[in-house]
Amino acid sequence: MITNSAFAVEPWVVRERDLDMGTLAQTESVFALSNGHIGMRGNLDEGEPHGLPGTYLNSVYEQRPLPYAEAGYGYPESGQTVVNVTNGKLIRLLVDDEPFEIRYGRLHEHERLLDLRAGTLTRRAHWSAPSGCPVRVTSTRLVSFTQRAVAAIRYEVEALGSPVRIVVQSELVANESLPALSADPRATAVLESPLVMEENVTTEDCAIMIHRTRVSGLSIAAAMQHDVDAPDGTHMDMSGSGDTGRLTVVTRLEPGQRLRLVKLLAYGWSAERSRPAMHDQVMAALAGARSTGWDGLVSEQRAFLDDFWSGADVEIDGDPQVQQAVRFGLFHLLQAGARTEQRPIPAKGLTGPGYDGHTFWDTETFVLPVLSYTYPSAVADALDWRRTTLPQAKDRAKRLGLRGAAFPWRTIHGEECSGYWPAGTAAFHINADIACAVARYVDATHDIEFEREIGLPLLVATARLWRSLGHHDVGGRFRIDGVTGPDEYSALADNNVYTNLMARRNLRAAADATVRHPDGAQQLGVTVDETASWRAAADATYLPFDDRLGVHPQNEGFTEHARWDFAATEPEQYPLMLHFPYFELYRKQVVKQADLVLALYLCGEDFKFEDKVRDFAYYEALTVRDSSLSSAVQSVIAAEIGQLDLAYDYLGEAALMDLDDLEHNTRDGVHIASLAGAWTALVAGFGGMRAGGGRIRFDPRLPDGITRLAFRLCYRGRRLQVVVTADTTTYHLLEGDPLSVMHHGEEFLLGEQPVTLPTPAAATPDCWIRQPRGREPLPRRAGALRRPRP
Amino acid sequence: MITNSAFAVEPWVVRERDLDMGTLAQTESVFALSNGHIGMRGNLDEGEPHGLPGTYLNSVYEQRPLPYAEAGYGYPESGQTVVNVTNGKLIRLLVDDEPFEIRYGRLHEHERLLDLRAGTLTRRAHWSAPSGCPVRVTSTRLVSFTQRAVAAIRYEVEALGSPVRIVVQSELVANESLPALSADPRATAVLESPLVMEENVTTEDCAIMIHRTRVSGLSIAAAMQHDVDAPDGTHMDMSGSGDTGRLTVVTRLEPGQRLRLVKLLAYGWSAERSRPAMHDQVMAALAGARSTGWDGLVSEQRAFLDDFWSGADVEIDGDPQVQQAVRFGLFHLLQAGARTEQRPIPAKGLTGPGYDGHTFWDTETFVLPVLSYTYPSAVADALDWRRTTLPQAKDRAKRLGLRGAAFPWRTIHGEECSGYWPAGTAAFHINADIACAVARYVDATHDIEFEREIGLPLLVATARLWRSLGHHDVGGRFRIDGVTGPDEYSALADNNVYTNLMARRNLRAAADATVRHPDGAQQLGVTVDETASWRAAADATYLPFDDRLGVHPQNEGFTEHARWDFAATEPEQYPLMLHFPYFELYRKQVVKQADLVLALYLCGEDFKFEDKVRDFAYYEALTVRDSSLSSAVQSVIAAEIGQLDLAYDYLGEAALMDLDDLEHNTRDGVHIASLAGAWTALVAGFGGMRAGGGRIRFDPRLPDGITRLAFRLCYRGRRLQVVVTADTTTYHLLEGDPLSVMHHGEEFLLGEQPVTLPTPAAATPDCWIRQPRGREPLPRRAGALRRPRP
Repeated sequence: MITNSAFAVEPWVVRERDLDMGTLAQTESVFALSNGHIGMRGNLDEGEPHGLPGTYLNSVYEQRPLPYAEAGYGYPESGQTVVNVTNGKLIRLLVDDEPFEIRYGRLHEHERLLDLRAGTLTRRAHWSAPSGCPVRVTSTRLVSFTQRAVAAIRYEVEALGSPVRIVVQSELVANESLPALSADPRATAVLESPLVMEENVTTEDCAIMIHRTRVSGLSIAAAMQHDVDAPDGTHMDMSGSGDTGRLTVVTRLEPGQRLRLVKLLAYGWSAERSRPAMHDQVMAALAGARSTGWDGLVSEQRAFLDDFWSGADVEIDGDPQVQQAVRFGLFHLLQAGARTEQRPIPAKGLTGPGYDGHTFWDTETFVLPVLSYTYPSAVADALDWRRTTLPQAKDRAKRLGLRGAAFPWRTIHGEECSGYWPAGTAAFHINADIACAVARYVDATHDIEFEREIGLPLLVATARLWRSLGHHDVGGRFRIDGVTGPDEYSALADNNVYTNLMARRNLRAAADATVRHPDGAQQLGVTVDETASWRAAADATYLPFDDRLGVHPQNEGFTEHARWDFAATEPEQYPLMLHFPYFELYRKQVVKQADLVLALYLCGEDFKFEDKVRDFAYYEALTVRDSSLSSAVQSVIAAEIGQLDLAYDYLGEAALMDLDDLEHNTRDGVHIASLAGAWTALVAGFGGMRAGGGRIRFDPRLPDGITRLAFRLCYRGRRLQVVVTADTTTYHLLEGDPLSVMHHGEEFLLGEQPVTLPTPAAATPDCWIRQPRGREPLPRRAGALRRPRP
Repeated sequence: MITNSAFAVEPWVVRERDLDMGTLAQTESVFALSNGHIGMRGNLDEGEPHGLPGTYLNSVYEQRPLPYAEAGYGYPESGQTVVNVTNGKLIRLLVDDEPFEIRYGRLHEHERLLDLRAGTLTRRAHWSAPSGCPVRVTSTRLVSFTQRAVAAIRYEVEALGSPVRIVVQSELVANESLPALSADPRATAVLESPLVMEENVTTEDCAIMIHRTRVSGLSIAAAMQHDVDAPDGTHMDMSGSGDTGRLTVVTRLEPGQRLRLVKLLAYGWSAERSRPAMHDQVMAALAGARSTGWDGLVSEQRAFLDDFWSGADVEIDGDPQVQQAVRFGLFHLLQAGARTEQRPIPAKGLTGPGYDGHTFWDTETFVLPVLSYTYPSAVADALDWRRTTLPQAKDRAKRLGLRGAAFPWRTIHGEECSGYWPAGTAAFHINADIACAVARYVDATHDIEFEREIGLPLLVATARLWRSLGHHDVGGRFRIDGVTGPDEYSALADNNVYTNLMARRNLRAAADATVRHPDGAQQLGVTVDETASWRAAADATYLPFDDRLGVHPQNEGFTEHARWDFAATEPEQYPLMLHFPYFELYRKQVVKQADLVLALYLCGEDFKFEDKVRDFAYYEALTVRDSSLSSAVQSVIAAEIGQLDLAYDYLGEAALMDLDDLEHNTRDGVHIASLAGAWTALVAGFGGMRAGGGRIRFDPRLPDGITRLAFRLCYRGRRLQVVVTADTTTYHLLEGDPLSVMHHGEEFLLGEQPVTLPTPAAATPDCWIRQPRGREPLPRRAGALRRPRP
């Protein structure tokens, strides 16, 4: 487990000062580089030791059969699993016949540093071989944001004590052997040697390998080229055989002398293109990278990030750890989404094989909201990918006997890959999550062309789904029965409030969009009768309420169920799903992750403030946060109802999920949605930001401990900065036309001049809020004692 | 598909006059012989052609891993599958070098005949070899009810036209190759070569083979011995090698001359005993059989059956087809249950590998009620088997976080083998089904020793389960949430009425039994506080009722769900589960099999008559009978509410399930529970028989078409006969002390003298009953037009 001390707390970098073998796999995820197309785990240059070697290309997957003890109609027959593609990171080193291996010899110093502004991972090692020769090895790695197919490594060896013979082997290796992953169902299936060699060619200075996945039949090309700066007498040789391409550099270094090598890598994959086309594609990418050169790639990378940060940065005074974490989170979000280009954003980005590399509702619900206001083009890309999968989603709906499109609960290529339907297929809310992400993006950008070309088909197909999934009962109410909401500790319930509210929005957003795009709607066969039926369903949507308790049941009947026996549940029995059967979890009042509380956030205007307070208090007592998708949402609502200290605690949990490895599974990849949560808790929680209908509003309020919060965001072509202190909030329009903004319910026009308004004190309602025994969030402020314990 | 014409309609035999290759597998099931310990499908003596070779020993199974696409806590890791053991039925014949094979040469005549009074399967073939030699082959086969380990075959060949050289090979063969079964999840998993040879020994006149199952490690011994009556000059040789033991008889027959061979078979199996012990066991069984001899075995068999029929026979005037079917059904029930002796009764008996050879709730709910009144010792045996599996059931309850015992949904050896928990583990009603079978048997027999030794531990363990499975809500109601009732087209629902009513009976029966057996209760650690809590839960059991519709919802919320779109469902889309996802089935009003209607029958006194009428009418419109467990129950309630023609139609369906192969899967084995249904529909339906609390009552009424119904049954040591005609009902006490009996609500004492009372006309209530489009039962009486169509 990574403890806080694994990384130094610095505002713009994540630095590891010593190498801890116990956290190797976790740090590989934390230090992973990606541009959304290529992903490289932070494996050591020399390949070993490793936690889990990993190089990924977005949407390169292998297909595997899904087994069932008892089969059923409509069960997906095959799954998709992300594949570890050709590893181009490998640079092995021999120092006087001794391999540079940190487990041998003496490691005097070792540092790794992820620079969030430079977009590079730098490593510095000072090491003596067992024979005594000391060397310094420095490497810097980047996956280019500006050249999508390109990654590069600058590698340097310096002799320190005495003359030394150096051999560097820079490689491309396919079908690396992988360690078996845990039996935890959340981890991925291991695929052994998934790649079939199609081409392994070397020229004097290039190596290129083309492989094909065995079943899914995807072609993968990887190429490398080197620029070597070495003393005279250095000998170089490029060779390729089997699944390996290798440049060997042999030289001799005097003390103080250095060998420098820049390795350029290009990757491509395709389901369609021929081998020669793939070959040429990666060679062209290499040529482009070579003409840019290492320095050029580095400066492009920084310029790209400078621009990103100028529209997205969040500054926090008073909590350097959260400061670092929120930037780390934004950086990984950008890495996951920047260059997907009609490909999905997986739950772990391209940082590890967790969850088989699948994308879930996490992306639309937790990740795209952040990117909508910080890097909106990534949202358009991700939703465009969903549009490209409409054929699969329509087939799925048909197979299920429904109309419109039924998007998969988990997938890489668009087909449903969930092997457990009560928590997969039945979680239909993903369709509304997608539709609402469309609406949110369109609101944030006013990108009308996107709405017409990409948004409308998604909205119409999902509205049709809901209309066929629900029914009007004899009382006229529109019910959606037997579905699973966000909380995975309930399933197959009637009238899940979150689902019904989101479906209602979906239906209305679709109807509204058809009015704006009548031609597009006509092409999709939408009639006025149809949109009228959507609106009628939306208007009649049933929302159960428990009058006795004065709260919304998460779904119909929920509040009648037995409460989970938290007093009898031991700390080591969490997460509950690994120690109790679904049967018990489903039929009791226990909540894995925000569900009704997520509705309080995403559909906030559908609830009265008093309801929010009561509902939040009710569900706090039941929510165990066995999912990383929960704490940020709880933070937002805690902040909204004035429970600022609690909100702060949850912020800490969301922000530090991966840096502190709170769920002990960062090894499989970082939690992109949870990383998004730090921004969400800060901007939507403490900033109180909400947007919709072309309007943006803020209800800022700060907890004790954060003295200043400043965040930048993009809205409808503007860049804003909001600076919150305990007393005042100042709004800056950094770019774009004047904009009407709401501050704690009062509207003002924000133009060139900053506007400063008072930050009102939060009115803490009189309510008793507590969590299940042992599931309280860690107090963010030491000694804070604001929540009395029973 | 077997059509009616496949079998001649005769009162005491099932006769097939011609061999139809298309129905071979089905007839193998229909003609299967069993005593509950050994089961032999009706395969042809010569082994080929076959539908599915099958020889079974009760509880001989192999273990296999259960795969899951996504694993979960508490999922069973391995399944159990019935194994095709050593085949001792094989007798091959060569006629002048030509193998006797009905697909070759000319088959002049072929008849098979299952004699329900003799307990034998006889076959007669008149065949000419391709070369022209005609022979007559006659075989008679029995599996002995009186000698549990023994089966026997008398085989005779007669030369007809010209002198002929005859070679008979009588074999024991293990690891026969089996055809792949269908992909239908209801069919069994194929296990290839599951048996490992341990011993293959032949003596001059005996062959014995001992095998062991690979994973489950069960030892199986089979032995054969022959008595050959042949002309002088006959040569015989016994040999064994590999998985085969073989007696070869070579002779020459003059026209009219016969070769007669009696083959005695003995089987045994054990998980514990050594190979020499197994060897001796089957040799001893053979010695016993040999001393009895063929004629002795045949006469013992007939005596056993005479005794059975004298207490169990049902006579019907006016419907010879149902007459045959009900006797056929009782015969198979007896075969399935007669000699299980601490082993289960599987859903298919020992007639085929369907459902992996598992036992389900079918046995306790549909089969044991019939045996309780016809062959009660089989009930004691079957429930004693459940008692022996209490350790597994207690482990399972513990694993699920519950108290008491959780019996498996499907099993051979007692461990849960269901790989789909929403329709398996969640169907907790099986525990109450077992408890109620205990109470029913004790009521029917007054077997107090059984109650103390076997019944009490079962009642207490299941009561504890229910007490921990349900909870009192704030209003005090005892709720049982998130379970699956009998209807497999609903799952994980709250307060299933059937489950709640049965659980209530279970709780009360357990509390009552502890009063009768205080010592036993004390040994089980039952306190007065505990029984008080059982009674409190029982008294407070929540039974939802839909006031708006005036009916009981099958479970809470059921009547709010959308109704299945029957109008849009095509005939070929049944059974629905093979054409629609569980998701759709679960959340809509559509019923696979009697659920609330089963409660109307089994818990009839908990409903008012008017409720029964309304409930029945409501569920008739939703019930598609995709399960063979439904029609008999519907028949009983239809009869009770005076819908006699409808009751008659459902009787026909239950009775002819296997003889007419109504579900097209008799090939995998007969439907023991449905076969029990014919008796149930006749005795509980038209006879109106109900028993409980030491009292038995009858409300007889006959449909048009049945002019006389006479049935015999056992109750509390008496044998009764009830003879019903349209006008009168006559009660006969055949054996035992006088007994108080209720006839249409009036009590009388039945002694030596028969009592004749009027049969009142059924009062048909004014209700509109119809079934889903296309799912009406076949009219039993041609031209009957009593149900107007809309």
